[in-house]
Amino acid sequence: MEPKTDTVYNFSAGPAALPKAVMEKAQAEFVNWNGMGVSVMEISHRSKPFIKVAQEAEQDLRDLLNIPDNYKVLFCQGGARAQFAAVPLNLMGNAKKATYIDGGYWAESAVNEAQKYCETDVFDAKVQKDGKIAILPASEWKIDPEAAYVHFCPNETIDGIEINDLPVTDKPIVADMSSTILSREIDVSKYGVIYAGAQKNIGPAGICIAIVRDDLLELASDLVPGILNYKLLAEQDSMFNTPPTYAWYLSGLVFKWLKEQGGVKAIEKINREKAALLYDYVDSSDFYRNGIHPNNRSLMNVPFQLAKPELDGTFLELAEARGLTSLKGHRVVGGMRASIYNAMTLEGVQALVSFMKEFEAQYA
Amino acid sequence: MEPKTDTVYNFSAGPAALPKAVMEKAQAEFVNWNGMGVSVMEISHRSKPFIKVAQEAEQDLRDLLNIPDNYKVLFCQGGARAQFAAVPLNLMGNAKKATYIDGGYWAESAVNEAQKYCETDVFDAKVQKDGKIAILPASEWKIDPEAAYVHFCPNETIDGIEINDLPVTDKPIVADMSSTILSREIDVSKYGVIYAGAQKNIGPAGICIAIVRDDLLELASDLVPGILNYKLLAEQDSMFNTPPTYAWYLSGLVFKWLKEQGGVKAIEKINREKAALLYDYVDSSDFYRNGIHPNNRSLMNVPFQLAKPELDGTFLELAEARGLTSLKGHRVVGGMRASIYNAMTLEGVQALVSFMKEFEAQYA
Repeated sequence: MEPKTDTVYNFSAGPAALPKAVMEKAQAEFVNWNGMGVSVMEISHRSKPFIKVAQEAEQDLRDLLNIPDNYKVLFCQGGARAQFAAVPLNLMGNAKKATYIDGGYWAESAVNEAQKYCETDVFDAKVQKDGKIAILPASEWKIDPEAAYVHFCPNETIDGIEINDLPVTDKPIVADMSSTILSREIDVSKYGVIYAGAQKNIGPAGICIAIVRDDLLELASDLVPGILNYKLLAEQDSMFNTPPTYAWYLSGLVFKWLKEQGGVKAIEKINREKAALLYDYVDSSDFYRNGIHPNNRSLMNVPFQLAKPELDGTFLELAEARGLTSLKGHRVVGGMRASIYNAMTLEGVQALVSFMKEFEAQYA
Repeated sequence: MEPKTDTVYNFSAGPAALPKAVMEKAQAEFVNWNGMGVSVMEISHRSKPFIKVAQEAEQDLRDLLNIPDNYKVLFCQGGARAQFAAVPLNLMGNAKKATYIDGGYWAESAVNEAQKYCETDVFDAKVQKDGKIAILPASEWKIDPEAAYVHFCPNETIDGIEINDLPVTDKPIVADMSSTILSREIDVSKYGVIYAGAQKNIGPAGICIAIVRDDLLELASDLVPGILNYKLLAEQDSMFNTPPTYAWYLSGLVFKWLKEQGGVKAIEKINREKAALLYDYVDSSDFYRNGIHPNNRSLMNVPFQLAKPELDGTFLELAEARGLTSLKGHRVVGGMRASIYNAMTLEGVQALVSFMKEFEAQYA
């Protein structure tokens, strides 16, 4: 095995690696931002310089995702977990039910929270296909005709499952895109609400984006806490209270970086290349295994198991020594997981595959 | 007037200045924390190195405030605004009412949110005394015998009002200490819940501390969103979902810095000196005025008005040129406001008073 290098490739599932160029810029201006002699985190969220940061971040995100004008972009607190409550509290109106498509751990977590506020009609879309976990095609999903909305999670971070279909429905579609957003092109106009915790493809933990179609702003329950109230947040430009300004600023830097990379279309191409490299190698090997059907493999989170699970510790230790970090799988799935969000370079995935080959050669 | 200096004294009310030593340390290790080759914001909140950060921050805060063992320390999201909802949602139990002591803008904002979840019994404690705004002594506050708790805000950031008394009651006392916490010694054992948005005396915006007496963890409504559920957060060491890790880390650095300064007792001494310097000068001058009675003047937020309000713009412009920034008062009060939290040095306040004297000499 080759010795440790200075380059670290961080495969953390979240909080995840941020683009190197973003981190270096943020470091350089950390204590003297915008020539003001203070940090961007030390100024009022209502000051002109910060409002410019906030507005540019919103506009850049709108540009990156082609967000139509009839959608509000909200910068929220509390992560996607807060949205699990915010969605029913904001969208139920006079309805009593909502349909939740169950594709894995996070979809189920959303159900558990929603049950406090509405009746949840849950459709389990997971099936076994060719000995692997797959997702039924959307045409087979059963959606309650009285549902206020249909919720799904297109990328299951823990399981490494991806749902490429959209629910076939005239109800508002609500998507937890925490691990999907900005990784590929999407048509926002097909959704009612898209939300995403920042700590994968947007910025640091502590900020969460919600993109809400404006006709859905009038349905909130009287019981929705102000900080989760979409309409209030929209009216106040997400400054109903002091927002997490530093996380907002860093997210804005990531959006600018992504534009410089050529936008979502360009990064999607690299993301597909990265994922193919890893999955192809895993599939070609008898030593590594991924339990998800090729139709539903995540582009962002690649779990894999060793044929000899007793070597997990050795694998992780040697990988770490090579600068390949945070590869331990979630306890629910076991084995390894490589999260390869936008900030992970092709070189990083190449380095991982090289290491996996060497490890296989030595220990298989 | 003297020319611009390189030193900036930042009087922002929040997000506010952080200690210089903290910011310099954070900058130095921004992209390579703990020798890991990545930022502390790029690693899992469940990784050993981050859990150490989290636990040390909690222990340092416990040490600084002498928090008894029967209190949980929670690191929350959503700011104090989220707590305005969290308090009734967690504490009402079978009660229907809560008493709110009204001392100003933020106390009233807490009432507005609480009204969604309970009947609010509001006692207006503000009076005029010697032509200034004052607060009635606590012995005169009327507290509903059926109240589940008594809520008050000891420091009104906008008005510059301070309440030095504690409610006289056997009910749990709940305090919004966003602008009070760590500025002076307090006896935590007298409170049921203390909460505080970080962006004044703790760290950057986006994290909020709640200190909760453990017998109050069993009273939550079924409707409390998970991210606001004190019991759940306590059981999960504030990692029910991904916490704002970078804000938590920075808060921890601030706690260590404060310990190095000699702790809360030592900083309180400096804070009293800073406030006295500013108030004494304002009182000695006919050109500046503060509208709060000396018994109830804030130690942290010092609003003052010019005898010639038409000079407000000139004052702010010249102050800015001298490196005295963010002095504009809140629109509700007008004039100026100097927020002098822990990170503001005595030298900063001296520089402000020198400037005020020069300005008075030239423009009075």
